[in-house]
Amino acid sequence: MSGNTLGKLFCVTNFGESHGPAIGAVVDGCPAGLPLSEADIQLELDRRRPGTSRHVTQRQEADQVEILSGVYEGVTTGTPIGLLIRNTDARSKDYSNIADTFRPGHADYTYWRKFGERDPRGGGRSSARLTAPSVAAGAIAKKWLAQTYGTVVRGYMSQLGPIAIPFESWDEVPRNPFYAPCASIVPQLEAFMDQLRKDGDSIGARIEAVAENLPAGWGEPLYDRLDADIAHVMMGLNAVKGVSIGAGFASIEQRGSEHGDEITPTGFLSNNAGGILGGISSGQPITVSLAIKPTSSIRIERQSVNRAGESVAVQTLGRHDPCVGIRATPIVEALLAIVLMDHALRNRAQCGAS
Amino acid sequence: MSGNTLGKLFCVTNFGESHGPAIGAVVDGCPAGLPLSEADIQLELDRRRPGTSRHVTQRQEADQVEILSGVYEGVTTGTPIGLLIRNTDARSKDYSNIADTFRPGHADYTYWRKFGERDPRGGGRSSARLTAPSVAAGAIAKKWLAQTYGTVVRGYMSQLGPIAIPFESWDEVPRNPFYAPCASIVPQLEAFMDQLRKDGDSIGARIEAVAENLPAGWGEPLYDRLDADIAHVMMGLNAVKGVSIGAGFASIEQRGSEHGDEITPTGFLSNNAGGILGGISSGQPITVSLAIKPTSSIRIERQSVNRAGESVAVQTLGRHDPCVGIRATPIVEALLAIVLMDHALRNRAQCGAS
Amino acid sequence: MSGNTLGKLFCVTNFGESHGPAIGAVVDGCPAGLPLSEADIQLELDRRRPGTSRHVTQRQEADQVEILSGVYEGVTTGTPIGLLIRNTDARSKDYSNIADTFRPGHADYTYWRKFGERDPRGGGRSSARLTAPSVAAGAIAKKWLAQTYGTVVRGYMSQLGPIAIPFESWDEVPRNPFYAPCASIVPQLEAFMDQLRKDGDSIGARIEAVAENLPAGWGEPLYDRLDADIAHVMMGLNAVKGVSIGAGFASIEQRGSEHGDEITPTGFLSNNAGGILGGISSGQPITVSLAIKPTSSIRIERQSVNRAGESVAVQTLGRHDPCVGIRATPIVEALLAIVLMDHALRNRAQCGAS
Amino acid sequence: MSGNTLGKLFCVTNFGESHGPAIGAVVDGCPAGLPLSEADIQLELDRRRPGTSRHVTQRQEADQVEILSGVYEGVTTGTPIGLLIRNTDARSKDYSNIADTFRPGHADYTYWRKFGERDPRGGGRSSARLTAPSVAAGAIAKKWLAQTYGTVVRGYMSQLGPIAIPFESWDEVPRNPFYAPCASIVPQLEAFMDQLRKDGDSIGARIEAVAENLPAGWGEPLYDRLDADIAHVMMGLNAVKGVSIGAGFASIEQRGSEHGDEITPTGFLSNNAGGILGGISSGQPITVSLAIKPTSSIRIERQSVNRAGESVAVQTLGRHDPCVGIRATPIVEALLAIVLMDHALRNRAQCGAS
Repeated sequence: MSGNTLGKLFCVTNFGESHGPAIGAVVDGCPAGLPLSEADIQLELDRRRPGTSRHVTQRQEADQVEILSGVYEGVTTGTPIGLLIRNTDARSKDYSNIADTFRPGHADYTYWRKFGERDPRGGGRSSARLTAPSVAAGAIAKKWLAQTYGTVVRGYMSQLGPIAIPFESWDEVPRNPFYAPCASIVPQLEAFMDQLRKDGDSIGARIEAVAENLPAGWGEPLYDRLDADIAHVMMGLNAVKGVSIGAGFASIEQRGSEHGDEITPTGFLSNNAGGILGGISSGQPITVSLAIKPTSSIRIERQSVNRAGESVAVQTLGRHDPCVGIRATPIVEALLAIVLMDHALRNRAQCGAS
Repeated sequence: MSGNTLGKLFCVTNFGESHGPAIGAVVDGCPAGLPLSEADIQLELDRRRPGTSRHVTQRQEADQVEILSGVYEGVTTGTPIGLLIRNTDARSKDYSNIADTFRPGHADYTYWRKFGERDPRGGGRSSARLTAPSVAAGAIAKKWLAQTYGTVVRGYMSQLGPIAIPFESWDEVPRNPFYAPCASIVPQLEAFMDQLRKDGDSIGARIEAVAENLPAGWGEPLYDRLDADIAHVMMGLNAVKGVSIGAGFASIEQRGSEHGDEITPTGFLSNNAGGILGGISSGQPITVSLAIKPTSSIRIERQSVNRAGESVAVQTLGRHDPCVGIRATPIVEALLAIVLMDHALRNRAQCGAS
Repeated sequence: MSGNTLGKLFCVTNFGESHGPAIGAVVDGCPAGLPLSEADIQLELDRRRPGTSRHVTQRQEADQVEILSGVYEGVTTGTPIGLLIRNTDARSKDYSNIADTFRPGHADYTYWRKFGERDPRGGGRSSARLTAPSVAAGAIAKKWLAQTYGTVVRGYMSQLGPIAIPFESWDEVPRNPFYAPCASIVPQLEAFMDQLRKDGDSIGARIEAVAENLPAGWGEPLYDRLDADIAHVMMGLNAVKGVSIGAGFASIEQRGSEHGDEITPTGFLSNNAGGILGGISSGQPITVSLAIKPTSSIRIERQSVNRAGESVAVQTLGRHDPCVGIRATPIVEALLAIVLMDHALRNRAQCGAS
Repeated sequence: MSGNTLGKLFCVTNFGESHGPAIGAVVDGCPAGLPLSEADIQLELDRRRPGTSRHVTQRQEADQVEILSGVYEGVTTGTPIGLLIRNTDARSKDYSNIADTFRPGHADYTYWRKFGERDPRGGGRSSARLTAPSVAAGAIAKKWLAQTYGTVVRGYMSQLGPIAIPFESWDEVPRNPFYAPCASIVPQLEAFMDQLRKDGDSIGARIEAVAENLPAGWGEPLYDRLDADIAHVMMGLNAVKGVSIGAGFASIEQRGSEHGDEITPTGFLSNNAGGILGGISSGQPITVSLAIKPTSSIRIERQSVNRAGESVAVQTLGRHDPCVGIRATPIVEALLAIVLMDHALRNRAQCGAS
């Protein structure tokens, strides 16, 4: 029931601040018997890691994960898996000027109003750095889902600001610097980003996540529906302002005769539902689409106030991603995997093997 | 942790099926001392009630609520509030033909895959009728929020299929048959709906919800962020395929210099954030937008299969809403109020009075 | 997370007051496919029902349960099971004098301090009458456990005030007016109770509960251990002041060479552990022992204060059980069954079939 | 909902194994603004630490805690507090012989039955070493309770095997090697323990915990009663076989005229209730009594089986406490403080300031 815990049976409790000693997670509820090493987790952390191209923040964090518990002789034991990532490249002086000022678009103001106290270094707890423990936990979920059901959870960028990115191939995504499923559009994206950096501005993006090869039957009738829990975890990700499933907002203009996916003895004829009917998986691919807002930290000067309520100008000069969407894909995959694994276990509890 | 319970401290446990003896909810965690009568709840239930215009289902349900517990001499006592609504107009024969068939777009198939057993009468548990207990619980939350903080939670329809509805006035909404904030567009909406009924088809809609006059500080840093919990409850509502907060999907094309809401000594200059920064309320209005899919029950014949996996044609002739969005507004308000009250209590627990 | 909900996966949400319109429960998480009728539940409610002998309260409550949801054509559907019991024999005038007075040993004072408001009729929410919904929910758990694992959950009275009751036979318990496993002691118990009634006083008791035929492996390593959750549910029962498992308080004086149950290829040689090692079931019978305090409502005059803090004399003349322990056995069985079923489902989630 | 998490609002998630790299906890829900340093926590850890006298295990663990998050400039920020304790003196070879054998009285057998896999080094997750994170978390709760309400949570040993220990003075407890409230009995206790070590055997004990200066009103009406949650946390502690509140098992033989605590304008005349009426605190001291079983690890040879089900003799020669009760007092205090703080926050949520 902790606000910093995700999941009901596969539970991820996240801790840490951007510039504190360490960040991490405790993953509870993982079945015993899953082969698991730090390398399995590192693989996913490296996909999210900052500093990998000129289009993302230049902060250098090794993001080396240490497994503290729950694994013995390379296999999970069913007990909580403690995951620790030390912060190494924390330059607190970059942020010293903001302790008293509320950066527009950031959580500075609301944390101050809620807690009175806050850790201002690098955004403290509200930093996107806290997605790393989610990615680490998601690596476990991904591996378990793949091994148990053959489930594949993948994502990609489908839009960068005004530029729609056509889907050409899953094969392109892992090698693409934007996690885009299209190679030929990269020069256009890079030109856009280069101009953006010159402008000292930032931009939004759209990310898609897809889960394939999962059984029908995961989810709950009401409230904790599978789509509801996906929306929860996705909207809970920094910078996300919108979540949709299947046909999403296009459903508004659809007629029932178009939207309702017909079924034949060999399967569904379409997937407007995005793989979920009545809150429960249908066995079709689960398709999720996310709106990511532009990074709030920009070099352009903006109006704000300080703690005393006085007008101040804010300009953010630290190391920031001009488009947080670029590094969002592995995070979104991890979050989707966590929700799916949680519901797999919930379903197994009530309905037996699936 | 029940899948049919909403909220962590203000907890709504929902039970019932469309054509069973009764539906209802147990509302736990409400503070003592709130004046509460069945009339307070009935008011909201009547707003959601079917059969009120020719554009909605003609099923006649009085939806009379009975308070079974938790209220003594007109005041809440702090103990669970049991709410009971008897089903009265359940025509099971209308649905007898579907027990063996999976209606496209409905939960028939997924419930069968999950549970093996299901109550096929009127969609059973997956019926939109189960939103009535949420509305009843939401009436309590609305009253408590209004009394404690002066918070006002309201909603309206902003789009019906292809027809965008301009926002003219909150005053229009309560008397408008579509919960639209514009009187002059009603003839156009009615003409559209009349044609739709003739076609035997259905249509999607877009609903907005707004909460005003709430304090800054509600929400949690990670995972159970206020926006995450709003997304959860909204995507958990039947027929919702998309949820956005503030600028929502428009954020994708925004630049940071446009999106980030500047702050002045007299307040924020814009509300792209939709009242939530870093998962915590800022004190600005919370703005939520929902995509509602078209009703799956249509007269047009569609392809499906039966339990044996054989091809069948499905045509749904019962009493249905051709646009479930029309009755969605009071439900969406109720759900938003429940989440807000839950977070008000959570905030009070950790941070004291707000 | 509601304080009035028991269980994590098999969840019982209890509502109602002693003299309100109704009491009941919503049982969520029950697997689909369990044959279930009102008669199954009524059987257990009738075992708990008041008015069955001269040694218990003479309040006449039919305690007729109505299943409101979650069962279709005699079989559970996996959706929440709503259970309703109308209060019929509520004589509010018996209690009218206590609205302003705090009865010693009762919850009157603490409810008033906590909530400000309270329903004083018959103890309101703190009445032992609220154990009826637990018994109803427990009937479902008992049936599922019996059907799925052959688990048998039984209880008996082992001590009434100063009178220790020898265990002779399980066969005696169902027909014994004290749920005692010994027929020959009944005259002694009846004489004791008759004298007690003449004295206008009450007495404590000791109840044992035993679960047999359950698999090894139910429970969690830390905090939510099986014994911890049993202690939680038992100490949460009205009038319980002590809970022990296996050798219980006798463990204090035991040596390790005596206490630790040795294991042989054909099984354990003793059961000091009470069927639980390290918080997890061993497959041996689970044995629980409870201390039940004497009823607080007695005819003997006692000192107390009223809301104004003034000294008052309190004498309780309503219909009360002089030994609440007498009717406790079916309740204790129900509670144990609920915890076991909850852990059976939790274990199935993490560890697969057991 | 994680099985390794304690509390609903003040949440302690525990991870680690006896001989893994580290143990620790994430403490979520702590209010912001509490002054907190590692020294505050170390103080309590040092009270629990092994190796402090010849009557406890000679394992040498510094048990140095590191605060990883949630504290900034010496004050809590309201975000999760990560606590890390490295294992340093883990002699795995001492335990190598038990990987295949189930030690009587230990969790070896049940972990194996539940998870299939287990970490056998030093009992793995079932080791009493895992109480250290609870003590660390409890130190935070103790400090917050003391600062906010002046609440004092203390404990002592009241019985060691057959030797009852009279209560003489709280002042004696901190300096007493047995946490006994009586200096003159120490020679008798030491003689008993010395003989026990010669015998290679172990012994049980009884521990008392008392909380004073807390407000009336903490707790919930049903199920999550304050006494229920105390019983849960206490029975969840390694080696505890019985929990009682107030008069406890003595209630069985009490009459109502003796047990029910009378109230006068200046307060209660007795405390058979142990400070809790109807599951809610009365403002009187909360008194809890625990039965601790003898350590299962003894030098005396015992019968058991191995994984293959073959008969084996087990003799445990590692470093063990011959009476785990001796080090239990600071743990029990910590657990009681955690439950009280959790309920303080829960009460504040529903009932406002108390």
